[in-house]
Amino acid sequence: MYPVRSGDRYAFPPQPHQGMDMSFEPVFTPPTAEEIETRRDRVRALMDQRGLDYYVATCPDNVFYLTNFANYVHERPFILVLPRNGTPRFVVPKLEVPHVLSRRVGELEIVPYREFPAPAGETWIDSFTPLFGGGVVGVESICPLQVYEATPGDRRRTDVVDDARMVKTPYEIGRIVYACERVSETHAELMAMAKPGLMAADASGTLSRAMSGRLLQDVPTANLLATSIFVLFQPPGVSHDPHNFTDIFMAMREGGPHVSLINCRLNGYGAEIERTFFLGSVPEAAKRPFETMMEARYLALELARPGANMGEVDAAVNAVFEKAGYGGNLLHRTSHSIGVTGHEAPFLAEGYDREIEPGMFYTIEPGVYLDGIGGFRHSDTIVTTQDGNRILTKAPDDLDGLTLPLP
Amino acid sequence: MYPVRSGDRYAFPPQPHQGMDMSFEPVFTPPTAEEIETRRDRVRALMDQRGLDYYVATCPDNVFYLTNFANYVHERPFILVLPRNGTPRFVVPKLEVPHVLSRRVGELEIVPYREFPAPAGETWIDSFTPLFGGGVVGVESICPLQVYEATPGDRRRTDVVDDARMVKTPYEIGRIVYACERVSETHAELMAMAKPGLMAADASGTLSRAMSGRLLQDVPTANLLATSIFVLFQPPGVSHDPHNFTDIFMAMREGGPHVSLINCRLNGYGAEIERTFFLGSVPEAAKRPFETMMEARYLALELARPGANMGEVDAAVNAVFEKAGYGGNLLHRTSHSIGVTGHEAPFLAEGYDREIEPGMFYTIEPGVYLDGIGGFRHSDTIVTTQDGNRILTKAPDDLDGLTLPLP
Repeated sequence: MYPVRSGDRYAFPPQPHQGMDMSFEPVFTPPTAEEIETRRDRVRALMDQRGLDYYVATCPDNVFYLTNFANYVHERPFILVLPRNGTPRFVVPKLEVPHVLSRRVGELEIVPYREFPAPAGETWIDSFTPLFGGGVVGVESICPLQVYEATPGDRRRTDVVDDARMVKTPYEIGRIVYACERVSETHAELMAMAKPGLMAADASGTLSRAMSGRLLQDVPTANLLATSIFVLFQPPGVSHDPHNFTDIFMAMREGGPHVSLINCRLNGYGAEIERTFFLGSVPEAAKRPFETMMEARYLALELARPGANMGEVDAAVNAVFEKAGYGGNLLHRTSHSIGVTGHEAPFLAEGYDREIEPGMFYTIEPGVYLDGIGGFRHSDTIVTTQDGNRILTKAPDDLDGLTLPLP
Repeated sequence: MYPVRSGDRYAFPPQPHQGMDMSFEPVFTPPTAEEIETRRDRVRALMDQRGLDYYVATCPDNVFYLTNFANYVHERPFILVLPRNGTPRFVVPKLEVPHVLSRRVGELEIVPYREFPAPAGETWIDSFTPLFGGGVVGVESICPLQVYEATPGDRRRTDVVDDARMVKTPYEIGRIVYACERVSETHAELMAMAKPGLMAADASGTLSRAMSGRLLQDVPTANLLATSIFVLFQPPGVSHDPHNFTDIFMAMREGGPHVSLINCRLNGYGAEIERTFFLGSVPEAAKRPFETMMEARYLALELARPGANMGEVDAAVNAVFEKAGYGGNLLHRTSHSIGVTGHEAPFLAEGYDREIEPGMFYTIEPGVYLDGIGGFRHSDTIVTTQDGNRILTKAPDDLDGLTLPLP
């Protein structure tokens, strides 16, 4: 367990990043076949370690990671079957074959089926089950029961693709750096338009369109099935309830705390930035929770470095809140990872017993929620380096920088 | 098997709808507790028939149908447990409790868990497993493997909620009528702006914003987690490949066939309309496939009535194409249903052996796809009545009405 700091608040932890191939230059070109092969090799190495002869992936994010093909989940199954050696096979509806061919990167054997549903002999199960030659078959934790039941062999639940995705490749780091630049830019625009009366629906509409326009300008072939943009904020009166966006006509008002939320996935890679901000003035009651959140946040940034135990980082961060008397006002973990998905493993969360490695991404976002006062949470997207971490999103973080002038 | 008609084309089938409580008036108010209870009673009756003591639902559309609470799937599980008698229990992350309370309709016992992941004793599994008292437990075909493994008791894969959803309640019919009005209105707007050079990205942006604006004007509390709007078209050169939207800067051009596609889910209920249309003139090679598609479509509209076997309707429709020499140019079934989801069961598809009932919805959309000529498909949303069906979407359907003047 790490000691809890209390004195040296508001000092950024050191940001070393030597020793890894990390350029932090934004990248928005599609992956090469070599990049995809690197990822498949990681998955094959894990399959080897876990004694798997085949792996079955239906999670659209796992399929995207290994093929560059994105799909939304609907009634027609898309199933990727990875043998430990050789070309992956992709069971898809015949209707989607040209779509798969237009996006896929890397070798892929397409195994079409007629339609869902289909007559006996022409169903997805008829295409799927002959792809196995016996042995041990790994399946995802979120594998749909009907796919699990149709999978022959000795089946084991294990998340090898999710595990392979935890440490990003240099290419992926560049893609996430690009997303971090876009969310930071949009956050600055939100702060520039902030004023009493600004409705969430209007800010969201204007800034989401601007962000998707910028993406399409940079990447005209951007895959909208792998794109989602959330630009939102919560005004005081709502911000203590961090997943409450029921009333999108809620408006900013003098004072605070407001909490901004920008979480996007741009053509397959995500980033997130959030800030607790005020209009005109900071209510006296908001100062102590803000400072406690900042203390928790700086501790998280200091502790989120290679070698640390993820659950222990969250416990140490929670202890800052507990010591300040806010132990009953916590609603979520310190961090989720981000990459192909907006929320993905690993997590800085009590009970999650894993060690941080270089090349992992985290949102650092400890928060405290006080009914009658509001919510206090910043979120940044960071990458862990050889010796520490680097914050990739940019916005003011202190009370001065986040108390915006009234018009 | 139904005989294939060939003579009396272009004559709408009769549209009787007596004998059911169908007003076809649009509805956009949220469901009442009585409406939700009616649905739960249907599910309980199916559970009784199938000998189930509990049912486990994680599919967000099934949860929405039974609670009015919408969620997107992410790493934090939301699991609805329905006992055969008594109040449903809903396992949710603590963070989401106020969100659930803000949307849920009907009695619901909320069973929160700390967070995902969480320390032993505070995980979702710790909240979930004590909810069962032995007996037979039904689970969905798409139940995630990790939820299935955590479910105690004698587990059976069976889709009781999906089955209950197939026949719509009078309230649901009104909701889908509302969605049909919106997609028909948007389709008319798309036809009005159609001209050579109009890009899919521009048409989609303008018309999606207009449709969501209209929804928020009608329903300021509309749930955007239960809303999705697709307004797209394919120009000739792409329309033979019906799921190809890779290039969103593709533009309309003189001639055709273009295919429009408007599929939406507005605050929880969907509708769909699609048309094959031309700018200025109809290429000679397009006339025969268009007429064959129309013949298939009218046969489908004639056959899609209570008592018909769903698979046989599709077989009869496909036979129209086969007889015309297009048997090798079919890519999909005649129809999917629509309701809480944009694509849902039941299906008019060969191999799907079920009988049509009054109160079911179908998209009627047989299509034929000819590389070098284009795609030919109209889609309408229909409801089956006591004696036949009623088309709820509105747009011209013949070559005259769908050959738009050049500017």
